[in-house]
Amino acid sequence: MQSLLLNTIGSLRVETTSEPVPKTGEVLLQVSHCAVCRTDAKIWKYGHRDLVLPRIPGHEICGRVSGSGKRYVVWPGTACGKCAQCVSGAENLCRDMRIIGFHEDGGFAEFTAVPEKSLIAVPEDLPGYLACMTEPMACAVNGLEQVGAGEGDRVLIFGAGPVGLMLALAVRSMGGIPFIREVNPRRIEQVKRFLDRAEIRVAAEASELEFDRAVNAAPDAATVTQGFSRLKPGGVFCLFSGLIQDAPAPVSTLNRLHYRQLRLVGAYGCTRLQMVKALGILADHQDILALLIQDRISLDRVPAVLPKLLAGESLKYIIEMDSTGPMTRNG
Amino acid sequence: MQSLLLNTIGSLRVETTSEPVPKTGEVLLQVSHCAVCRTDAKIWKYGHRDLVLPRIPGHEICGRVSGSGKRYVVWPGTACGKCAQCVSGAENLCRDMRIIGFHEDGGFAEFTAVPEKSLIAVPEDLPGYLACMTEPMACAVNGLEQVGAGEGDRVLIFGAGPVGLMLALAVRSMGGIPFIREVNPRRIEQVKRFLDRAEIRVAAEASELEFDRAVNAAPDAATVTQGFSRLKPGGVFCLFSGLIQDAPAPVSTLNRLHYRQLRLVGAYGCTRLQMVKALGILADHQDILALLIQDRISLDRVPAVLPKLLAGESLKYIIEMDSTGPMTRNG
Repeated sequence: MQSLLLNTIGSLRVETTSEPVPKTGEVLLQVSHCAVCRTDAKIWKYGHRDLVLPRIPGHEICGRVSGSGKRYVVWPGTACGKCAQCVSGAENLCRDMRIIGFHEDGGFAEFTAVPEKSLIAVPEDLPGYLACMTEPMACAVNGLEQVGAGEGDRVLIFGAGPVGLMLALAVRSMGGIPFIREVNPRRIEQVKRFLDRAEIRVAAEASELEFDRAVNAAPDAATVTQGFSRLKPGGVFCLFSGLIQDAPAPVSTLNRLHYRQLRLVGAYGCTRLQMVKALGILADHQDILALLIQDRISLDRVPAVLPKLLAGESLKYIIEMDSTGPMTRNG
Repeated sequence: MQSLLLNTIGSLRVETTSEPVPKTGEVLLQVSHCAVCRTDAKIWKYGHRDLVLPRIPGHEICGRVSGSGKRYVVWPGTACGKCAQCVSGAENLCRDMRIIGFHEDGGFAEFTAVPEKSLIAVPEDLPGYLACMTEPMACAVNGLEQVGAGEGDRVLIFGAGPVGLMLALAVRSMGGIPFIREVNPRRIEQVKRFLDRAEIRVAAEASELEFDRAVNAAPDAATVTQGFSRLKPGGVFCLFSGLIQDAPAPVSTLNRLHYRQLRLVGAYGCTRLQMVKALGILADHQDILALLIQDRISLDRVPAVLPKLLAGESLKYIIEMDSTGPMTRNG
């Protein structure tokens, strides 16, 4: 089969590899679509603590079970099911977690072998090029569940990249009031239609408006300091994105947390249940979500778009396995 | 009446002042006991953002309503009762909060005028020299409620000062398993009987043991970094003590929060309801709590003990208003 193989850091290319053979409990999935995550660009360029080489990346997968033809998206984890985290329902925190596209081969290929337990059926009316965004939307749902965003809450989101926009849309779909803070004015222009359609307001830097919740979808440590300064007493900030810069968090920021009883909560990955919820959000907002797609591309074009993802210049690229033929809109 | 008056920062002395005249909604309280808080020592030496001079300090008050003779402790706040925080039950976060001993005269005096709404009746069998510790115990209860400590949880507390020990005792009384981390071995010696009686374990620095919850009762920023490194995935750290040193929190600490979905929650002050809960804990553990008392002293001895409190050398000093006579054990 054709696959994109990462042999060493920086070297990703289309190769002919043998079809994966499902192990016990696994099924063979014929990939129809796989969305490209910014993390895929990062592991290609820099590696990742969970990456085992050589590897076929890709963890935002939609496909058909070989033989049956039914369509599924894939929860990209294999959890032990026995540890305290798994038993409590937080399987994304399993200590023995193996992540598809990191520890195991993923969806940048014609076929991938995945645990049957990780399959989640796709509603009929949801095309594959949207369904493959279930995993990032589920991560957004996890972030909002961790931060405890509820109906009527004003939620400030830092970063108007695809995941920041999915967070804002998820806030709207849960009855909250999303605001987005983005330092790049060109990005705001780029996503203006999405913001208008989803009724997401842009938060001005100088505004006095205070928020119930804040979430960072940008890796700058300043988002934490800024977020704390704009929260109401008792407000919650979700560290949704890991931080890349070694900017120190000043003690005055932490003391603000102490005196105003703020909360800082982490969020990482998602659970199967959150993927089910995410599918519902996708199904309800198909037209809006389509605005997040930069392009639907073939496998061999992926290496060329990764630098654009790293530079934060583009929206979502979707790999379409049948894109050599005429583009279809029925997934 | 005799009172301890802070005229300027650093100058605290016994003076004869006029008895306070209760305003509408207030009652005159004859102070029987007032515990000395480390914050009292800090405001004497350094001032405080909420301090208005001249001022009679003292916010850990037990006394009798003049005329009736009934005994009460005092929730040391005056909240507006109308803002979003008050309405939600978090009156300790009221934006118009006026704190007794900071904005209003407090309990380092024979009499003090307090809002009738702030009075909480003391159980008959609880002596005043213990009841006056209700407020710090209520702050401990608030910290544990914010951090969500529950039955069976292993809770790591940083700092074996009086409030750290009250936190540990409160953990025990709620069915949790308290551990204490203290950098000063002499302090551990000093409080050994308390630790033994309350079944509180000392956490070794090198131990691999992981905790469900952690709380700092020490103002060192290193407690946050250390606390994060010892929490289980999904664990919660309570920033109970404000931080004094401007040590930066490294980004690696924050990323640990992201990847393990840890939580950092603030805690400040307490509510009336938490004072009621605290009274219950005090009543149930009178013998153990008595071990926290360094000395029961008269008003004029307070200026001499404040430096010891600042140095972290002593446990709890209790001002006893009738201590000129023979010491009684019935409060």
